Amino acid sequence: MRGVLMYAPGDVRVEEREDPKIVEPTDAVIRVSATCICGSDLWPYRGIEPLYTQPQVMGHEYIGVVEQVGDEVRNIKVGDFVVGSFVASDNTCEICQAGYQSRCIHNVMVGASGTQAQLARIPLADGTLVATPGQPDEDLIPSLLAASDVLGTGWFAAVAAEAGPGKTIAVVGDGAVGLSAILAAKQLGAERVIAFSRHPERQALAREFGATDIIEERGDDGAAKVKELTGGYGAHGVVEAVGTEESMWQAIHATRPGGYVGYVGVTHGVKLDGLELFFTGVHLHGGPAPVRRFLPELIQLIWDRKIDPGKVFDLTLPLDQAAEGYKAMDERRATKVLLTP
Amino acid sequence: MRGVLMYAPGDVRVEEREDPKIVEPTDAVIRVSATCICGSDLWPYRGIEPLYTQPQVMGHEYIGVVEQVGDEVRNIKVGDFVVGSFVASDNTCEICQAGYQSRCIHNVMVGASGTQAQLARIPLADGTLVATPGQPDEDLIPSLLAASDVLGTGWFAAVAAEAGPGKTIAVVGDGAVGLSAILAAKQLGAERVIAFSRHPERQALAREFGATDIIEERGDDGAAKVKELTGGYGAHGVVEAVGTEESMWQAIHATRPGGYVGYVGVTHGVKLDGLELFFTGVHLHGGPAPVRRFLPELIQLIWDRKIDPGKVFDLTLPLDQAAEGYKAMDERRATKVLLTP
Repeated sequence: MRGVLMYAPGDVRVEEREDPKIVEPTDAVIRVSATCICGSDLWPYRGIEPLYTQPQVMGHEYIGVVEQVGDEVRNIKVGDFVVGSFVASDNTCEICQAGYQSRCIHNVMVGASGTQAQLARIPLADGTLVATPGQPDEDLIPSLLAASDVLGTGWFAAVAAEAGPGKTIAVVGDGAVGLSAILAAKQLGAERVIAFSRHPERQALAREFGATDIIEERGDDGAAKVKELTGGYGAHGVVEAVGTEESMWQAIHATRPGGYVGYVGVTHGVKLDGLELFFTGVHLHGGPAPVRRFLPELIQLIWDRKIDPGKVFDLTLPLDQAAEGYKAMDERRATKVLLTP
Repeated sequence: MRGVLMYAPGDVRVEEREDPKIVEPTDAVIRVSATCICGSDLWPYRGIEPLYTQPQVMGHEYIGVVEQVGDEVRNIKVGDFVVGSFVASDNTCEICQAGYQSRCIHNVMVGASGTQAQLARIPLADGTLVATPGQPDEDLIPSLLAASDVLGTGWFAAVAAEAGPGKTIAVVGDGAVGLSAILAAKQLGAERVIAFSRHPERQALAREFGATDIIEERGDDGAAKVKELTGGYGAHGVVEAVGTEESMWQAIHATRPGGYVGYVGVTHGVKLDGLELFFTGVHLHGGPAPVRRFLPELIQLIWDRKIDPGKVFDLTLPLDQAAEGYKAMDERRATKVLLTP
C-alpha cells in the first residue's frame, strides 16, 4: 500500500509500505476512505518535536471500511463504515466508563500504525471504532473525518469549558480545533460565542459555525476585551486550542473566577505559575480529548446533516501529494488538509 | 484595644491599637470572641512573603458579637453572634451568586483590619457575615471559628475534588486545612478517604475525622501508593492542602485521568509544566476558598453537633501570648492555635 513517511523535519514522502495485518485478536484493519494532517503533525515537521523513528509513519485521523477483524472482535464487522478516535481504547475500564477513553488503562496510540495511508491497523476495534448507520454519501466524508479528531477535540474542549444555555464562551485559537469548538459551543446551547481571530476567512467560518463576536486582540489585551464584553466579569468558559504560554494565560485571564477553561492545545514549553493560577480561581481541564465519548452523538448529528464540521477542510489532495499538504498547513495557506488515499 | 502586630519576620507583638470604626456604611464592627493563627500567617513570619506595612496588623479568621453597624447594613444586627469569611463579599454580584464570594467583584480582604485583636471592622457586613441561630455554647466556639477559614477551605477543596458517595478521595497535607478536608470528604459521603501523614497525632485525628487509610510516603511514592490502593486507577479526587511543587504533583499524580484535584495550599514558587499537566487529564480547581458559600450549612452542622472541626485547634492561648502561638505553629509544635482576646 501507499503511505506517508516523514524522514526529517520538512521532508515528507509517500512510499510503498507493507500492508498492515491483524496482530492482536482485538485488532481491525480498515481501508482508509479519508485521512488528514493534524496540527500536531506540524510539531515534528517543524523540528520542535523529535521523530520517534526515522523515517516515521504519520497520521492518526481516519475513516474507512473494515477489511479484516481479529478473532475477538464482536461488534465491528467486515464491511462496516467506521469512524474512530486517535487513541484506541477498550471502552470498558473504569476510566473509559467515566468518559476518558483517551486515557484508557489499555490505551494505544493509533498513530503508531500511521493512518495517512491506504490501510490502517486499529487496535481494540470494538472499543475504538463506531460504525455509521450505513455507507455515507460522499458529501458527508469530510465531516465524518473531522469527527475522528478535530471536531471531537473541539467538542471536548467546549464541554470542559461548560458551554451550555445562557453561557458566554470564548475560544482562543482559530485553527480547525478552535473552529470546531465554536461549532460545539453553539450546538451545546451557548448564548454568546466569542472567537479570537485575525484571519478574514477563519472569522467568516467562525461566524458560520456560531460565533457571535470576534476579537482580534491577543494575550492580555484579548482577555481584557472579553471582560469588556461581559460586564467586567469575564467569560463563563474559555476554550484554549493553541498550546503556548501566551494562549494559556489569554484563556485563563478571559475566564471569570469560578469559570471553566477547557484546554486542548498540546502545550509546548508552558510553565504555569502556581500562585497566579491560584488567584484566578478558574477550573482548568483538558488533555488529549476522549473523542470516543462523543462519537455516537457526533456521527448522528452529521448523518442528520445538523452540523457540517467538514468545512474546516479547505484543501483536499490525493494522498500522494501529502508533502504539499504539510507545506500548505505549515505556511498557514490551509487550515486543515484532507487526503484521499 | 489590644491587637497583634508583626514588626518583622519572627517578631510578633501584642500592643494597644486604635479601636476600629465604621468607615463605610456597609461595615460592621465586631467584638472578637475568638481568632486564630493561619498557616498563611507563617509566610511573612518566616520571611517568605514581605510585610505590606511595618508593622503589619495580622489575622483574618474571627467570630464574635456585632457591636456597631453602618447605615446601610440591613441583615446583620447589633448583638448578633456572627461567623464570617476571610474575604468580604457583597454576595450579590454574578461571581458571588455563582458561589465564588472570595473573588466577589467588590471583594475586600478582611485581614486589612487585622482580626487578631479585640475588635475588628468587617466590610460588606450583610454579604460577609452569617449570624448563628443564637449565642453559642462555649464548647462550640472552636468549631465556629474553624468554619471561618480552615473548615470552609477544606470543605471547598473536598467539593472541588468532587467528594461524594462511592468516591475515593485522597488528601495531601495533614495541617488544619487537610484535616478539615478529610472531615468534609467524609461528610460529603466519600466511600474511602486516604490521608497522607507521618505524624501520629495528626493520623489519629485524621482517622477520627473519617480517614479510612493512611499513607506515609510522599511525592510520587505517595501517589504510587494511592494507585496501589485503587486498582491501578488513582483516586477519583485529591485535595492539595500544602502548596509546594512536590505536593501539587503528588496530588495530580495520585488522581486518575478525568479525576479532580482541589487545591487550596497557597502555592509558592510552583511552576506547573503544561505538557505534563496536559497528559494527566485531571480537572484542576482551587484558589482562595469561597468560604461564604458554605457558612450557612457548616454553621448548622456545628450547631447540631454533627461535626466537631474545632478539634484542629491543639493550643489555646490568650491574645497577649500571640507571639508564643506563632512560635508553636512555626516549630510545628501546634497544628492550629486559637487566641482568646
